[in-house]
Amino acid sequence: MAVYTDVNEEQLARFLEEYKIGHVRSYKGIAEGSENSNFLLRTDTGSYILTLYEKRVDQSDLPFFLCLMQHLARKGITCPLPVERRDRQLIGELAGRPAAIITFLEGMWMRHPTVAQCGEVGRELAELHLAGADFPMHRANALAVDGWRTLWDGSRDRADSVVPGLVAEVEADFAVLERDWPQDLPGGIIHADLFPDNVFFLGDRLSGLIDFYFACEDFYAYDVAVCLNAWCFEPDFSFNAAKAAALTAGYQSVRPLSAAEQQALPLLARGSALRFMLTRLYDWLTIPDGALVQKRDPLEYVAKLRFHRGVTTPEAYGIS
Amino acid sequence: MAVYTDVNEEQLARFLEEYKIGHVRSYKGIAEGSENSNFLLRTDTGSYILTLYEKRVDQSDLPFFLCLMQHLARKGITCPLPVERRDRQLIGELAGRPAAIITFLEGMWMRHPTVAQCGEVGRELAELHLAGADFPMHRANALAVDGWRTLWDGSRDRADSVVPGLVAEVEADFAVLERDWPQDLPGGIIHADLFPDNVFFLGDRLSGLIDFYFACEDFYAYDVAVCLNAWCFEPDFSFNAAKAAALTAGYQSVRPLSAAEQQALPLLARGSALRFMLTRLYDWLTIPDGALVQKRDPLEYVAKLRFHRGVTTPEAYGIS
Repeated sequence: MAVYTDVNEEQLARFLEEYKIGHVRSYKGIAEGSENSNFLLRTDTGSYILTLYEKRVDQSDLPFFLCLMQHLARKGITCPLPVERRDRQLIGELAGRPAAIITFLEGMWMRHPTVAQCGEVGRELAELHLAGADFPMHRANALAVDGWRTLWDGSRDRADSVVPGLVAEVEADFAVLERDWPQDLPGGIIHADLFPDNVFFLGDRLSGLIDFYFACEDFYAYDVAVCLNAWCFEPDFSFNAAKAAALTAGYQSVRPLSAAEQQALPLLARGSALRFMLTRLYDWLTIPDGALVQKRDPLEYVAKLRFHRGVTTPEAYGIS
Repeated sequence: MAVYTDVNEEQLARFLEEYKIGHVRSYKGIAEGSENSNFLLRTDTGSYILTLYEKRVDQSDLPFFLCLMQHLARKGITCPLPVERRDRQLIGELAGRPAAIITFLEGMWMRHPTVAQCGEVGRELAELHLAGADFPMHRANALAVDGWRTLWDGSRDRADSVVPGLVAEVEADFAVLERDWPQDLPGGIIHADLFPDNVFFLGDRLSGLIDFYFACEDFYAYDVAVCLNAWCFEPDFSFNAAKAAALTAGYQSVRPLSAAEQQALPLLARGSALRFMLTRLYDWLTIPDGALVQKRDPLEYVAKLRFHRGVTTPEAYGIS
């Protein structure tokens, strides 16, 4: 929700010489995206997003993210296309940061997604899974169960100060998740962060997916579980079963879930809720108040975590 | 440097029904502008800036600001043009705030303006003064000497904690400024905040002026003094006489300064430096650290203030 690194006109002009997209006509910092500095860039040839990757992104992961976007776009997934430099590279350096230019995507993200839009998201998520199946690069999920443990080790001491009783709740979650986490579900490339602000619509039509900077390899059904958390709760944190039914039906219209995947959904959704609760809790406790990084209240995900703890069968998510 | 108020898709669609600019295709919060919430809006018909006016702007001033932009644009000053609603009004309401749509201006603001660009700014400032001469609405400068006194009353107690000795320095400034401030220089509509981030360029060509939300009536030469402070110091706070000479020469190529205006410049520049030092000092001392409002270090303007105190003749600003 900020521009961490500003860029001056000489730096930008020099950077653009490496590209074939003409001269800059305007650039404005965008107040979206929580990890990187993003500018909406207009040149003689069109509109683009210029991203400077800040230190929370591991530079060695950038080729994976950008090549994945290129791969998915070629397979028909509407997502930003990294613009190649004259030397065919996708990544340059600007203001001391790794930087890339990607194409601008029309559409807007839904602050209040509808049931129909949840169905579209489920369908597109399955298309993404299919399109990524032959992507040749690899990246493990840094925020899988082991990674959650690390976040928890850095937050546990003060967790009860945020939500009284949270330590006992989360310890019980870890006991179950570390014992029962599935070992052999179908998997491959997942988006891993397909929240409403990463999905653009024009009316009810999904117009594109953005922000692949958490993409990795993991169970496909885990990505469905992330979306259940991200799309199927109301602002008061109540679960909307109609949205979940639409999302899972949309997904299954393209890629049916196996019986094992369906049975695993409650545990995966609980794990996914724990993952987002833990990153928020960790940021909440460790980022100073004056910092530019937006801190989000972990309470939302404490509520979602509690919901999924009570779910035992996939019917709760609209799967029959 | 933030979006204070977000807008959801239903609110925006309903708001746009009042306009004849088609349907929204995208909107993104812009990390620029320190007082209001700004979105870059793209519709079927083009690009626009959507502004929600936050509480630091007095609603009763909005017609003045927006009509002034309309007036100046008709007179040939390149500035954003407020878009009329179907009911011919320029201001509506969105997310509980007064809101307006203005046209998008190509160009970018210079982080490192050149001498030539300072000349362009001076020239355009004079054109603005001429174009505003027959604007029929009125607005006093809320940040004239009386207003500085109010800011100082709210900051003095803790001013020495920011810069040791500042209280004595500023009290001496007030004594001089309140005694010697000119009473009868030529005046009319001034921009009053023509900082580099409010002036767009395409190369060395000035492509437009934005952000008229401090515009008011005051001495024209005071606006020149504001620009001397805003454009003619280097990042290390040293004064760049070549930039000042270019700025004042550019101004005088369109509107020559009278002898009285020239003689008043050192005092006006000192007053203008005090004005920006005081707003920054006040914000520095009163805005909580976690707030979204960007706080700028008052030290920059303490240095500029000290420079102008030592200036006795307009030659220092390149006027011979």
